[in-house]
Formats: sequence, structure tokens, C-alpha cells
Amino acid sequence: MTKNEIQLVRSLDDKRSREEAGLFVAEGEKLVMELMASDFRVQRVYYTEGNFGPDAECVSPKEMGRISHLKTATDCLALVEIPVRKLDPAMLRGRLTLALDGVQNPGNMGTVIRLADWFGIRDILCSADCADCFNPKVVQATMGAITRVAVHYGDLGTMIAGTGDSLPVYGTFLEGENIYGAPLPAEGVIVLGSEGRGISPEIERLVGHKLFIPPYPPESHGAESLNVAVAAAIVCSEFRRRQ
Amino acid sequence: MTKNEIQLVRSLDDKRSREEAGLFVAEGEKLVMELMASDFRVQRVYYTEGNFGPDAECVSPKEMGRISHLKTATDCLALVEIPVRKLDPAMLRGRLTLALDGVQNPGNMGTVIRLADWFGIRDILCSADCADCFNPKVVQATMGAITRVAVHYGDLGTMIAGTGDSLPVYGTFLEGENIYGAPLPAEGVIVLGSEGRGISPEIERLVGHKLFIPPYPPESHGAESLNVAVAAAIVCSEFRRRQ
Repeated sequence: MTKNEIQLVRSLDDKRSREEAGLFVAEGEKLVMELMASDFRVQRVYYTEGNFGPDAECVSPKEMGRISHLKTATDCLALVEIPVRKLDPAMLRGRLTLALDGVQNPGNMGTVIRLADWFGIRDILCSADCADCFNPKVVQATMGAITRVAVHYGDLGTMIAGTGDSLPVYGTFLEGENIYGAPLPAEGVIVLGSEGRGISPEIERLVGHKLFIPPYPPESHGAESLNVAVAAAIVCSEFRRRQ
Repeated sequence: MTKNEIQLVRSLDDKRSREEAGLFVAEGEKLVMELMASDFRVQRVYYTEGNFGPDAECVSPKEMGRISHLKTATDCLALVEIPVRKLDPAMLRGRLTLALDGVQNPGNMGTVIRLADWFGIRDILCSADCADCFNPKVVQATMGAITRVAVHYGDLGTMIAGTGDSLPVYGTFLEGENIYGAPLPAEGVIVLGSEGRGISPEIERLVGHKLFIPPYPPESHGAESLNVAVAAAIVCSEFRRRQ
């Protein structure tokens, strides 16, 4: 590999560099194969072992160690083109969609994308300060779900309002209705807040249905909150259970 | 701070050093305060700001930066004695208990301890190869739940069998029964497997009730698995919903 190539791959840890290059990094045979089989365009594959087609380049384990963004390099790394995602609000009708307000931890972001995939959620709306879904840590944590779930960034209030008032908007709040008894339909937007600040006041105003995941036993016992991916999992599971 | 003190605090990133010193590290005012108010013995508090009692030591921000295990140091760090936890199988009767088989990621371990706390689970049984609950990353991820949930390490099969055949044992498997329709009691042991390997064959033999979290739509659509903390959250939520 040339010095420039190595520098390019390493630079993709940084969001601005990814945007300039229009590329992101994915590592590990399973994930790379899944990207190659998807509608993503894989521009280049570097590998130490295996068979990745004519455009792939065999590199030494030492080179792989230098370009890998993982603690322990695997046997392949791909440069993948960042797709252009268009949000068509009309497409959200009849579906469940997640909306993330300030979820900045890459591991949580990746885990939420992965569980959205499990529950057949195809779109996630994100405030601009959420972790970038093409951050290498996020891509790895999605375990391939990034190929099936579209993540849209922008002004979250505008995106939610853009669903045309036709979709009910749900969110988790301490003063919300017990989720286990609340009516939950097959379509809607589920808002999840940041770990530290919860759902911001501007977004709270758009939430028509406040839900609450009750602790057990229901009396207060010290536990104050749930990790955002854990809350997302419980809410999505509860919506899907009703179908 | 003396050089030896700094070295001691820094060394507690390592499990063997923690065991030798009998100490672990907790950081941030909220967590330290929660530990001080709990039955844990806080041996020493280092702080740059605030009031932590007569035994606390004021240090410079530079010193705090050197001893902190976080990317961004907070304003206090405590050395806390590792408690002796005894597992009394008779105490598990009438309760829900989690059993973790090879959960090695510290973030997942911390998140599971935190959600166990939310759902009133007081004990977690862990195979010896699970992440150590006193690893600084785990302690921070529990957000204080480590003061309320006892984590027991040892031979997982022996610990589960030691519940005296009196408790039903549950686990998640692809061929399990749909969890939304399965009868779920108020007591039992819920086994969760490692991300990579799932539940090991030795432990699987002890699972009397296999459960499955169905994806949506139920037909296969690419998603293959859920993060272990996400699966734990959904299973615990579903058990508690029935109460």
C-alpha cells in the first residue's frame, strides 16, 4: 500500500474526512461480504486472506494492522461509498420509525440500528448532533444492519413534523403512561432522547403520546434510568408484540 | 499525590491488580456519592472540587487527569473496597436472577447490571470468563447499579445447578418458544449467552425453557441476532410485564 492510501483509510475515523472522501470503512469478512451483496458500492477491499474478487488487494498483516480501526485487525477491510439517503415522509406511513434526539455514543447508535433491523424498522431520523452512522465504531456495532436501515440526519423537529401530522409520535418520559397497558399501533414515530439530557423541549412538544417503562417493583428503588439502546429495545419489542 | 499513589490508582485498570489491592475505581460525583451512601466501603476520595468529607484529598486537575481511567476526567475519583459477595442459592427463591455465559464486553456487562437494577433483579451469576464487574468501564456503565446488584463469578453450571432444581431455568435460543406467548413466572434463572458463541452446550443442558424473541416481520429478513444487553432488556421486560 502507498503512504497516501494508508493515510486515507486511517483518516476515515474522522467525520469530515469521510464526507470529503465520500467513503466509510467496514471490517471483517462477514460485514464486508454483506456490504458487497447489498446496494452499497464497495470501492476497494484490502485483505490478508480469502477471496474478495478481482478489485481486492492483498496486503500484509502488518499493513492491515496499520489501516485497521479495530483494536484487533481482522483479515479484511473495505472502503465503501457513503450512500445518498432521501427521506420521503410519505414512505413512513404504515410503518414504525425511530427518531433519536442527541444520541452521541457510537456504541449505542450502532446497537439501536441493529435492533431496529431486528424489528423491521427501515428508517431512523437523527438530530444533527447524533453519532454519525458511518463512524467505524457504529458500522461495526450494527453487525450489518447498516445495509438494511436508512439513517437520516437533519433538524429532528422538521423531520418529525414533515411526517404530515398523519403519524402518531411516541416518546418515553418519567410521567408517561405505563407502556404495557398503552394502545400501540403498527405505525408511528418513536422518539428516544440522549443519555444525559433526555428528549429536548422542542421535540417534546411534538410527542403526542408519552410512554413509561415501569421499573420493578414499581416503587422507586434507586435505579433512575435505562441505557438508550435498552429503552429502545423494550419499546420496539412492546410495539411489535401487539401486531 | 505521591508517585506510588498515582501508580496504584492507574494499576486498577487491571483485574489482577484490583484483586491484589482489594480495590476498584469509581469516578464522577454522582457515582461516588452513591457508593458513599451504600454499604460499599470507600477507602479514599480524590477530588478537584466539591466536598467529600475529612478523608478526601484535594488534587490538581493535572493529577486527576493522570489518575483518571476516563477519556475526560471528572472532578472526583474514589478508591472503593471490593466487597465479598456470598451466593446463597436459597435466597434466589421467589426472585428473578440473571446468568451470563461468557459476556466479555465491559460495556455490555455494565448495561446488563444497570437494567437488572431497573427490573429489581438483585443477583447476576457469571461464568469466570465474563467481564469483571469492577473493571472501571463496567463500574461507570452501571451508573450506580453496582451498589444494588450483586455479581457472582464462578462455574456457571455449578451455580445454576446449585439453585437446587427448584427454580425454572430460561434461555434464549433460535428454536425457542415465542416469548410473547410463553408462560413466565415471577421466579427463575434467565441465561444469556456470549455475543459470539451464544449459550454453551454445558449450560444449554440446564435450560428447561427455551425462549425466542421473534423478529418483525417474522419471516427471515437478514437480521441475525440482537446485542446481549438488548436481548436481556426485552426478556426482563417481558417477565416483569406479567407481574
